[in-house]
Amino acid sequence: MDDPYAFELDPQLQADTVLVSDWHLCQVRLMNDSRYPWVILVPKVPGVAEIHELADEQQHLLLEESVRLSKALDQLYSPHKLNIAALGNVVRQLHIHHVVRFEDDAVFPNPVWGVGTVQPYEPDKLAETVSALTIAFDLL
Amino acid sequence: MDDPYAFELDPQLQADTVLVSDWHLCQVRLMNDSRYPWVILVPKVPGVAEIHELADEQQHLLLEESVRLSKALDQLYSPHKLNIAALGNVVRQLHIHHVVRFEDDAVFPNPVWGVGTVQPYEPDKLAETVSALTIAFDLL
Repeated sequence: MDDPYAFELDPQLQADTVLVSDWHLCQVRLMNDSRYPWVILVPKVPGVAEIHELADEQQHLLLEESVRLSKALDQLYSPHKLNIAALGNVVRQLHIHHVVRFEDDAVFPNPVWGVGTVQPYEPDKLAETVSALTIAFDLL
Repeated sequence: MDDPYAFELDPQLQADTVLVSDWHLCQVRLMNDSRYPWVILVPKVPGVAEIHELADEQQHLLLEESVRLSKALDQLYSPHKLNIAALGNVVRQLHIHHVVRFEDDAVFPNPVWGVGTVQPYEPDKLAETVSALTIAFDLL
């Protein structure tokens, strides 16, 4: 179950996101939706849908990587609130959303999932966002 | 900041939930909404809105209590999926939702927040649910 070589990213996640960084447990992937800064962590563990299905050590690594990501988003964007969630109703492969929310964003205070239409980044803006995240991670 | 005696539950959370159990870090509270088995963890730490604002030790305790709650919900309800989320767009005090989801529930696969009308439990059903949760926690 824990053989990292057997991990394959879900095709829907592959289509919706771009890889920003590859951490010890998780891939760090930017949702290609410019409406919100929105990053997901995908543990590179095959066959897992729930956090409690991870081994204890993996659970704690996931927490640490989630906190690292949260601190980077906090420093970069100074959000009103982070929305952190493991849902998986549509894509079952375990992935943890980290969405930067502002009081004047498209749907605040509602959750972002399944609402409105995805607005992919312009290429320059996508590159700039990935670069900013990468630098923020390096500084932590 | 970490003085537990200074912790006060947010009045909205107080109104929407009932106390099931008092754990080391968190209050375990059942959302009084019979549409979904829905339990929140509220860390008894004043002034905290984000997981990454907790001390490292508190973060790891939160993870452990979240996993304990998740395993109990899994054993009690055999859900299709758990939805675990720290949102806080409406109530800022840190609280982590654990919602048991089924493919035939009221709004699946959408998230539950802010959708439809709350259906408070009948008193007997509320007591039965609290009791079942308490027993499940004791067995873990």
